[in-house]
Amino acid sequence: MAEKILTRRGTKAVYAGDLAVVDVDQVMVVDSIAQSFIERMERDLAAVPRYPERVSIVIDHVAPASTVSVAQAQKEAREYAANTGVRLFDVGRGICHQVLTEERLAQPGWIVLGSDSHSTTYGAVAAFGTGMGATDIALAAASGKTWLKVPESVKVTFTGELQPSVTAKDAALEMIRVLGADGATYQSIEMHAGDRFTRGERMTLANLCVEAGAKAGLVVPGGEILTAYGYDVPEWVYPDPGAAYVREVDIDLTALRPRMSAPSEVDNVHDVAALRGLKVDQVFIGTCTNGRLEDLHAAAAVLKGRRVNPGTRLLVIPASSEVMEAAMEDGTLLTLQRAGAALGTPGCGPCMGRHQGVLAPGEVCVSTSNRNFIGRMGDKDAQVYLASPAVAAATAVMGRIALPEDVAGVVA
Amino acid sequence: MAEKILTRRGTKAVYAGDLAVVDVDQVMVVDSIAQSFIERMERDLAAVPRYPERVSIVIDHVAPASTVSVAQAQKEAREYAANTGVRLFDVGRGICHQVLTEERLAQPGWIVLGSDSHSTTYGAVAAFGTGMGATDIALAAASGKTWLKVPESVKVTFTGELQPSVTAKDAALEMIRVLGADGATYQSIEMHAGDRFTRGERMTLANLCVEAGAKAGLVVPGGEILTAYGYDVPEWVYPDPGAAYVREVDIDLTALRPRMSAPSEVDNVHDVAALRGLKVDQVFIGTCTNGRLEDLHAAAAVLKGRRVNPGTRLLVIPASSEVMEAAMEDGTLLTLQRAGAALGTPGCGPCMGRHQGVLAPGEVCVSTSNRNFIGRMGDKDAQVYLASPAVAAATAVMGRIALPEDVAGVVA
Repeated sequence: MAEKILTRRGTKAVYAGDLAVVDVDQVMVVDSIAQSFIERMERDLAAVPRYPERVSIVIDHVAPASTVSVAQAQKEAREYAANTGVRLFDVGRGICHQVLTEERLAQPGWIVLGSDSHSTTYGAVAAFGTGMGATDIALAAASGKTWLKVPESVKVTFTGELQPSVTAKDAALEMIRVLGADGATYQSIEMHAGDRFTRGERMTLANLCVEAGAKAGLVVPGGEILTAYGYDVPEWVYPDPGAAYVREVDIDLTALRPRMSAPSEVDNVHDVAALRGLKVDQVFIGTCTNGRLEDLHAAAAVLKGRRVNPGTRLLVIPASSEVMEAAMEDGTLLTLQRAGAALGTPGCGPCMGRHQGVLAPGEVCVSTSNRNFIGRMGDKDAQVYLASPAVAAATAVMGRIALPEDVAGVVA
Repeated sequence: MAEKILTRRGTKAVYAGDLAVVDVDQVMVVDSIAQSFIERMERDLAAVPRYPERVSIVIDHVAPASTVSVAQAQKEAREYAANTGVRLFDVGRGICHQVLTEERLAQPGWIVLGSDSHSTTYGAVAAFGTGMGATDIALAAASGKTWLKVPESVKVTFTGELQPSVTAKDAALEMIRVLGADGATYQSIEMHAGDRFTRGERMTLANLCVEAGAKAGLVVPGGEILTAYGYDVPEWVYPDPGAAYVREVDIDLTALRPRMSAPSEVDNVHDVAALRGLKVDQVFIGTCTNGRLEDLHAAAAVLKGRRVNPGTRLLVIPASSEVMEAAMEDGTLLTLQRAGAALGTPGCGPCMGRHQGVLAPGEVCVSTSNRNFIGRMGDKDAQVYLASPAVAAATAVMGRIALPEDVAGVVA
């Protein structure tokens, strides 16, 4: 799939290892990179965006602003958007990957460059999404093109069916465990799942691919999954029968149990059952990995009629305003609020430790996010465990790492 | 009223100018003072709280934590509460004054000391509330008592009736304009309003009293207002007929128009009409002044079916989890969300410029809070205008300072 998309958006047929120059369908810039991006555009390139409609700025990483310097950077981003006509998604609209997906600014067969490492997420809708730094992003905005080496592909095939209380997050963590943190460096992970997984679940899978070092993470459109969301899925985007892969991995969903990534590497994956009982200070449900409506539903199913443990605090930050609104409309947010959750402004929240739930030395956090590196969510002596929203919610109720079935009476 | 409460909670009859030693019914410590408070208790006084049930710690000023050092301070506050048995209201429960009022930890005739200057707010329920520093707070927690000079009293009488789109916030700002920023220094402002104003509106009035320098701001319980909320209002708490006041002021509510405090002093109060049209970058609805359910209702009445101006961002932060939950239940929050508000975790939000909406140089903010000093909400070159939730909401829709009636079709 990677070869086919890069061929289609370039000028000639390309294969793994080739250098390709390709048209870029959307360039995404987040608030924390915006100043560097603008400086590259204006000072280094003396350029304006070639196609303003193909550039989006999203204020999500530290939103609302936590300091004067952050506020100044966001002010400059707003002014740049107003002056150049690029799209701006301001404070409260949500996390970049979620917002661009909702706004249909990633489509099957597109190439999307983002100034955020989890831009692999767009592979959920069969777009070649990848993260780049400010300079490369600026060059793409200025020229409408980028160049890259065509990645080799790893084939991951999901078989069987998820059992109750096991989710796409568990499948994603298992995939990273099997591949390893550097197991797919500069490769494209092509995920074959048939008609399993919703769009949101596919985003969870594609999001985590960068944690194996992947350049892209493409979920093969299966059955009617994407067309049911209204996407036009071109025939050419599917992988050819007999395509060559550098590695092939099968993951049996039926055998999978809830998984958890322990500090301080994402591929340090264990069964939740093996980590059960560890006292937890903070639980965070949100992020581009697991802040969608289905994630809040999974958490609410565990928390309904219950209360967060008094020794633990629960932060819930919906991934976007659209998710927030839907969760208000269907009562999910009220369930979470009644359980004692502290709800936050749609955005990245404390995922990268810059505000809204930074961890103190020695604190333990169970998070639905995608990274548990040393110091990621605050102090270097804090510990982050990554899990699904269902496991996170169960942990919040018990005050200790727990499985959904540990919460008495929960029907998964 | 101040003399009567200080007499009742002391050992002898006291009058303005006397020194009084009194029992303290509740000591309130906020997160940002907690470390100093604990140090005073443990290191300087080597004491434990005399009456743990009379001490409350509220994590509200920077909640959730925005940095490791803030997180560390909050961690120490939690540990202190667990070790000593004092009450803890953790992240997301809400703003100290709102939470203590909801929890009935301020009652008519009580003395409440808070480590926050707006502790005058408790005067809404006829409690003598006042702010003190960490050392005085610690002494009160250790001994159960405090000492203070009995303040003189200023009598403010509200007459007439508020007209549509004019609110208690406008009455409070007018009171501060008439008294002046140092017009009631170390005095008790005794507000006579009959049966006007709900408990929440009385909190807005009492809250602003410190902006005239007042030691306390007591709203005389009127009619059934407090008893309707279930408070026991002792007969002795009412001011004596013929009581002596150092100054008497009448405010005619009927003649009052929506008011706004312009930078950079709270008593720099003007008619909103005179400031109309100024472009506004951020609108903030929340705080202990105006983050209650009736405030969100007033904002929602203006915002229903409308959208926030694309050049302006609107932050809405309910004052407490109770307010958040009620606003979810009655649809108010959904109205605000649909209008494009960015909702935040119950707490102080950006009121004192420490996170969640800090202002950049040159930015203009209309806020429902209580202080517009230079640098209060961020950069020293940002400007803050204080107004009611209705005016704030109208400003958010128009993108410029506006009156509710400027928003086409609004029925006040």
